[in-house]
Amino acid sequence: MEPQFTPLIDSLPSTVPFVGPEALERKRNRIFRARLGANENSFGPAPSVIAAMQENAADAWKYADPENFDLKQALAAHLGVAPGNVVVGEGVDTLLGLAVRQYVQQGTPVVTSLGAYPTFNFHVAGFGGRLVTVPYRDDREDLDALLDAVERENAPLVYFSNPDNPMGTWWAAADIERFIARLPTTTMLILDEAYGETAPASAMPPIDVSRPNVLRMRTFSKAYGLAGMRCGYAIGAERQILAFDKIRNHFGMNRLTQAAALAALKDQDYLTSVIARIIAGRDRIAQIAAGNGLRAIPSATNFVTIDCGRDGPFALSVLNALIERDVFVRKPMAPGLDRCIRVSVGLEHELDYFAEQLPLALASLA
Amino acid sequence: MEPQFTPLIDSLPSTVPFVGPEALERKRNRIFRARLGANENSFGPAPSVIAAMQENAADAWKYADPENFDLKQALAAHLGVAPGNVVVGEGVDTLLGLAVRQYVQQGTPVVTSLGAYPTFNFHVAGFGGRLVTVPYRDDREDLDALLDAVERENAPLVYFSNPDNPMGTWWAAADIERFIARLPTTTMLILDEAYGETAPASAMPPIDVSRPNVLRMRTFSKAYGLAGMRCGYAIGAERQILAFDKIRNHFGMNRLTQAAALAALKDQDYLTSVIARIIAGRDRIAQIAAGNGLRAIPSATNFVTIDCGRDGPFALSVLNALIERDVFVRKPMAPGLDRCIRVSVGLEHELDYFAEQLPLALASLA
Repeated sequence: MEPQFTPLIDSLPSTVPFVGPEALERKRNRIFRARLGANENSFGPAPSVIAAMQENAADAWKYADPENFDLKQALAAHLGVAPGNVVVGEGVDTLLGLAVRQYVQQGTPVVTSLGAYPTFNFHVAGFGGRLVTVPYRDDREDLDALLDAVERENAPLVYFSNPDNPMGTWWAAADIERFIARLPTTTMLILDEAYGETAPASAMPPIDVSRPNVLRMRTFSKAYGLAGMRCGYAIGAERQILAFDKIRNHFGMNRLTQAAALAALKDQDYLTSVIARIIAGRDRIAQIAAGNGLRAIPSATNFVTIDCGRDGPFALSVLNALIERDVFVRKPMAPGLDRCIRVSVGLEHELDYFAEQLPLALASLA
Repeated sequence: MEPQFTPLIDSLPSTVPFVGPEALERKRNRIFRARLGANENSFGPAPSVIAAMQENAADAWKYADPENFDLKQALAAHLGVAPGNVVVGEGVDTLLGLAVRQYVQQGTPVVTSLGAYPTFNFHVAGFGGRLVTVPYRDDREDLDALLDAVERENAPLVYFSNPDNPMGTWWAAADIERFIARLPTTTMLILDEAYGETAPASAMPPIDVSRPNVLRMRTFSKAYGLAGMRCGYAIGAERQILAFDKIRNHFGMNRLTQAAALAALKDQDYLTSVIARIIAGRDRIAQIAAGNGLRAIPSATNFVTIDCGRDGPFALSVLNALIERDVFVRKPMAPGLDRCIRVSVGLEHELDYFAEQLPLALASLA
């Protein structure tokens, strides 16, 4: 007899929510020439941020401040809230897991969109929750249907992202605010704003920490170019933020990451310049798509989702043909969304290469 | 009405297992002159490791390989096991949390020593487990009593560390092996070897991954000097290691940390030199204690626990007097152990300062 896992753990598969590009490279035994699949920010962190990491490297023997004091102060000042309204974690993924754990037990209904962020679903499954999914409508998360599902299921937790991943679409702030106003006060909304910095200002509702049922999550992984450093934060009412201290890994933050995030927050000029480059990159990807007779879905993120114009298997074959040609991209898999591939904004030479390879990939399927 | 936490979450306090030195510095409004409380490695990581972090800083925009492929290969080769016998995580704390989650539900008995690692207890409480503690005996974890408690409670999980934190004591490999042989096969042992590198070779049993009920946990935080980078690993039977993939945060590892750990593992000469310095530092701390009429408990770790010769309140006043004098140390709090303070090996100038301040601290209490 071996040690017995809990029944819940026993029931779960050993799975990875995404296959990393490195795993594909090992399998192909060849590296990618364009890394456009993981919604990373190829422009990278600011030179000031790289310098901060390098300067702090020799201090890596010290544990990080478990209170994230300096970073919370800086974030609070930046956001116009109190430090008690902010919790910092090792990426939004970690914070999502902690938030799910706070509200989900075996069988708890949790509402999300069919085809939305798989890592959120991974956490819900990991704590025994029951996923209730509603389809996208017109390539956007369907706010009314999400609300209906919340009410029908009496769900204590609902998730959506604005702007959305994997479609890149977004709602206006007024629509989000209407959603929040209509949401039962006993239902927590996780509003994932990982792509908030690249969205039009009109998509971002003002922060209102008087709402005890909204957690807004943001990250240094996207616009700030620090995906590999793992730093996200959640903004919410004080009681809900304090609850993270019940279960979070207090010494989990990386010391260099704290330094990097602080430096990144200070360098808003660099952020502004990167956002401009991301927007230009989105336009370029849309042009490349159009040049191949494909429609790019308008995006507020650092990627563009391209409608391949046919069914899921066709889009999958486009994806595979691109990967064969050393272009790393990903695609939505849910019915209706699966007709698309998703292309992150990359460096100019990467988009050049994509522009060169996409017609060849399409031709290979003709 | 606000969103309702699960009953378990509702019952937990918002707490930090340890107060960090930075928090004390903020409170005192003065920085420490000797940082000797957190069992960090003041000698720091190898120059080759610092260089690796600096070289990889510009790549921080990429997510880390979620499979930790290169690091697992290197660890497996180093340990003489297969990559499938190793799981890498964001510090041992994270791996402890995941291991607890695999075996613990509401009310599950979990055995540990009274006064052993608080973060393990934090995780057990966080998943609703019922801690069953046995006292230390002669300043060592009491292996026979731990076994008795496992059998009495039919506990699926037992934890101990060898060498031990907070006392620095250790058991010989043969004693550990006897413990494992006697352990019910349905009980998982978490054998925390965070301080394994600084222990005599005779304290470390050979690795035997055929045992499905032993997880050995090791870290880059101590001898390798990378506490701030968060990298630990667990070694065990394949099925038990694979179970971590059910619930771990696959994209949780920091990319610079992967590079740092790989470089650290390669630089075994530096590790050897640091271990020699740690051993010399232990001797120095023991001499300082003896020079003040106090007994140092023999240590196999990177710290020395000093018996202050009286009761808990006295040792606490010694601790506070040292902190007032800008010497950051910690102390065990459990009955019997609380007569001690715990002093990490530091740089020569830090131990000089400790040697200067300890008699003043003691004199202030006379």
